[in-house]
Amino acid sequence: MRRRGFAWGSFEIYGGSAGFYDYGPLGATIKRKIEQKIREAFQREGFFELETPTITPEEVFIASGHVEKFVDPLVECRKCGTRFRADHLVEEALGIDTEGMSAEHLTELIREKGIKCPECGGELGDVWYFNLMFETFIGPYKDKKGYLRPETAQGLFINFKRLNHFARNQLPFGVFQIGKAYRNEISPRQGMIRLREFTQAEAEIFFNPNETEHPHFEEVKDEKLRLYPIEHQLKDLGVIELTAEEAVKKGYVMNTFFAYYMVMVKRALLDMGIPWEAVRFRQQLPEERAHYSSDTWDVEIRSERFGWVECVGIAYRGDYDLSRHIKKSGEDLTVLIHYDEPKVVRHLKVSLNMKRVGPKLKGDAKRINDLIAGFNEEKKRELGALLEKEGKVTLEGYELEKDDFIIREVEEKITGEKIVPHVLEPSFGIDRPFYLLLENSLVIEEDRTYLKIKKDMAPIEVAVLPLVAKEPLKSIAYDVFRTLQKEGFIVVYDEKDTVGRRYMRYDEIGTPYCVTVDNQTPEDGTVTIRDRDTREQVRVKIEELPGKLRELIFGG
Amino acid sequence: MRRRGFAWGSFEIYGGSAGFYDYGPLGATIKRKIEQKIREAFQREGFFELETPTITPEEVFIASGHVEKFVDPLVECRKCGTRFRADHLVEEALGIDTEGMSAEHLTELIREKGIKCPECGGELGDVWYFNLMFETFIGPYKDKKGYLRPETAQGLFINFKRLNHFARNQLPFGVFQIGKAYRNEISPRQGMIRLREFTQAEAEIFFNPNETEHPHFEEVKDEKLRLYPIEHQLKDLGVIELTAEEAVKKGYVMNTFFAYYMVMVKRALLDMGIPWEAVRFRQQLPEERAHYSSDTWDVEIRSERFGWVECVGIAYRGDYDLSRHIKKSGEDLTVLIHYDEPKVVRHLKVSLNMKRVGPKLKGDAKRINDLIAGFNEEKKRELGALLEKEGKVTLEGYELEKDDFIIREVEEKITGEKIVPHVLEPSFGIDRPFYLLLENSLVIEEDRTYLKIKKDMAPIEVAVLPLVAKEPLKSIAYDVFRTLQKEGFIVVYDEKDTVGRRYMRYDEIGTPYCVTVDNQTPEDGTVTIRDRDTREQVRVKIEELPGKLRELIFGG
Repeated sequence: MRRRGFAWGSFEIYGGSAGFYDYGPLGATIKRKIEQKIREAFQREGFFELETPTITPEEVFIASGHVEKFVDPLVECRKCGTRFRADHLVEEALGIDTEGMSAEHLTELIREKGIKCPECGGELGDVWYFNLMFETFIGPYKDKKGYLRPETAQGLFINFKRLNHFARNQLPFGVFQIGKAYRNEISPRQGMIRLREFTQAEAEIFFNPNETEHPHFEEVKDEKLRLYPIEHQLKDLGVIELTAEEAVKKGYVMNTFFAYYMVMVKRALLDMGIPWEAVRFRQQLPEERAHYSSDTWDVEIRSERFGWVECVGIAYRGDYDLSRHIKKSGEDLTVLIHYDEPKVVRHLKVSLNMKRVGPKLKGDAKRINDLIAGFNEEKKRELGALLEKEGKVTLEGYELEKDDFIIREVEEKITGEKIVPHVLEPSFGIDRPFYLLLENSLVIEEDRTYLKIKKDMAPIEVAVLPLVAKEPLKSIAYDVFRTLQKEGFIVVYDEKDTVGRRYMRYDEIGTPYCVTVDNQTPEDGTVTIRDRDTREQVRVKIEELPGKLRELIFGG
Repeated sequence: MRRRGFAWGSFEIYGGSAGFYDYGPLGATIKRKIEQKIREAFQREGFFELETPTITPEEVFIASGHVEKFVDPLVECRKCGTRFRADHLVEEALGIDTEGMSAEHLTELIREKGIKCPECGGELGDVWYFNLMFETFIGPYKDKKGYLRPETAQGLFINFKRLNHFARNQLPFGVFQIGKAYRNEISPRQGMIRLREFTQAEAEIFFNPNETEHPHFEEVKDEKLRLYPIEHQLKDLGVIELTAEEAVKKGYVMNTFFAYYMVMVKRALLDMGIPWEAVRFRQQLPEERAHYSSDTWDVEIRSERFGWVECVGIAYRGDYDLSRHIKKSGEDLTVLIHYDEPKVVRHLKVSLNMKRVGPKLKGDAKRINDLIAGFNEEKKRELGALLEKEGKVTLEGYELEKDDFIIREVEEKITGEKIVPHVLEPSFGIDRPFYLLLENSLVIEEDRTYLKIKKDMAPIEVAVLPLVAKEPLKSIAYDVFRTLQKEGFIVVYDEKDTVGRRYMRYDEIGTPYCVTVDNQTPEDGTVTIRDRDTREQVRVKIEELPGKLRELIFGG
């Protein structure tokens, strides 16, 4: 991957920096194509794209819960000063699950069990929680703290009011964002699998929690899903394969709304060339879930090197985020839902009979009347029932009789109500699918190694080769190359080494077609197109080349 | 722009944060299309895309000069604590140019001329230089400082070794990156024109400074350029229009290599729909240039609101960056240039005649011989000349005669040499062209306001409208909408309000075509396509719609 220019650890000439990766000339193009496949999948659902800043003032992440909860427990060696994930140390030393343990509890376990520094054997200090967001300061004062966003989602939530206006108050609607997110990992490992800076493609679908049937579910109901539900994980029952419709009917997936987007995610992964055998949906165990989620299905892709790797999460975030932002900002982030027919609601109206109570309560009459007016429906009904039963009641130190009150049942017509929408979030990582796409595309055969990447995903789509580096073949080949370049293909011209070695070179980086200018070309204006996978060659006229290649690579 | 969902200041519900903008449902799509036009322009030149992290360890920016030079002078009011750009205050108060002034000089001027705080009239403190890079810390220790990159370019330079390997040591070659960059402005103004977080599309073209003829210049030589050279600015001569070839021949542009990429930039801007009348190339005055550049042409786009706005820079960075990184990292970032024919170089070989000097110098003989071997060519020739003239020389305290030396002229064949490539950098901002594209596309006529954006750049490409919101028109229109959505168009379905108001709504956001399902549709399966600009309507069969619209919007 490194040698051929796909990707490598960043800042190599300055000794590198863990958790950062560069996409090279071949890798960046594949990454863009992955992003584009996801963009198209979202756009086909009518979602609109947004882009919001990566630097975010801290208020946003106080509201979202990230300042409090996006933390890892850390412990430092008192002797050598190295820092470690305290939970990992305890888990490794004691073989127990530390999920949710407090810093104090972890410190206690380290003391009691005498866990030492794995580097130098020194004594460990007290455990504290370290926030994983990168911090910075906005503007010339050091008091305006900001964070690099740990997820792209919050930029969408805080814009809900504008988005709802754009959607003209019609649920459901979806928006998405493709961009960078950051996580200041304590000790990043596993190459591209755990990065400090990474790319996400997150969609937030806002819906009415009372309407969870997807209007287009019919179109996808027979599509197969491979599920690994919570129960199957706990009882070691393995995965099950069933249709989207069965998954809902048998209760594995909460509703057709959720199931519809599981199919969407599956199709997007297949469209970028991830093989179906390498994909499964695993339901997160309750203790794995992020603080905002009440149900999440991860889409995992199989890796020979790393096992099953979480690449996409489909999280049910409920009204968590919008409610938090309503509370923190004081803004109205609700949607007015119009009823099909106005609803009739019966209310109890309770007030004091001022004429009667005036002399008794004097200056307190108005205050107590206001107090009663502020009662909710339940409390008013309680008061009414008590008066019915006992004939009197004590309020604010005054004994009041039934006749001191005016009590009426009234009917009200309501045409709609304000609700806080719920959110379903399909969230793609980009870096992991990138790595897994390469791993799953690599074919090692006896006589060659080649990258069987889906043809439209190839970073170099066509290589133009003169059979030998002589005229007139060179000039003709170069002209063919320039023509294809101007037609929009990602194409290279290559005259170095034997044609056999060149074929090998382009097989290895996944170039689906090599166009060769040979001795027949000057005679009849034809060239050969060689297929990477079958190694078969066909002859075509030069002028037909762009159309033919477009059809072969992109399907016409 | 804000009301219709193109773009707005970020973090509104938390009071906003100057220098940050959100791209809304309409804006983000246009932004992506701008990026894609630039990507395609670069790819047509055979440049490869890269992607490197935004967070960057400080070593990189110490090497690049940004830690030292990417600074603004700041001054704080001692009374109210507000901070200001010291140079702006002095310029405004005294009407002088402060470019390049030291902090001490600015402080002195503030004291001497009695410049006070513009907010409260208080006394100002001492001026200091504030670095405009956002700072952060990588990992769990506070000692590993990083910056958010102020330009995407450095991520490419530090990878030069890998890139040169990928290009197989053949100059010229180009790479590019499209991504975020950051600049912690002291007081951002002018909306989207001066942002703290922005997007760049930068290409770095590495070339041999001895080969500055572009191989494809012939293809572009007759293309017109509108230039505003340094001399014309100083003497107030206005712009001149001439062909790329004339621009080079008359000495306005340094070579065909530079001129070729000016044409490339012009074409990319026109391709995204910037009108040619609104584009000019302005050569930066020496005092405006960034620390790394020795000649830069800005491409400016005319704005009604802001005047001429710099949107693209084409900078000649020379070998500045690579040389700095060679020095700082100790890595070999050169290219081996093979000569067409080996060069013969004559050397002087000088050594001690050990037999003669041995008895005299004893243990020092070897040391002095090594010393002479380390002399460069010039020093050796000096030594030879001195011996020729004087017959003797004093070295390390010993007097040595001509015969104590062995001096020979030798010839050496050299097949190539290592050079540090030079760099030409076309660097597009994305946010400014976005704003200027909108501004230049807005047409205000007597009876309507519409966005005459280039059709393939429109954020909503098609709106499907039932003439009235009744069956069967609604169902047919919805089916048409879903079909177009699945075909990959960005399309909306809209049944609200009169059809006239809907046309107005989509004119205003630049939707090039409205498809209307009317009463004739159920009868003969045809719909109307209405053109935004001409307001003319044509009838087409529903099944021909995708092909017809693709041709109209994207040119087939």
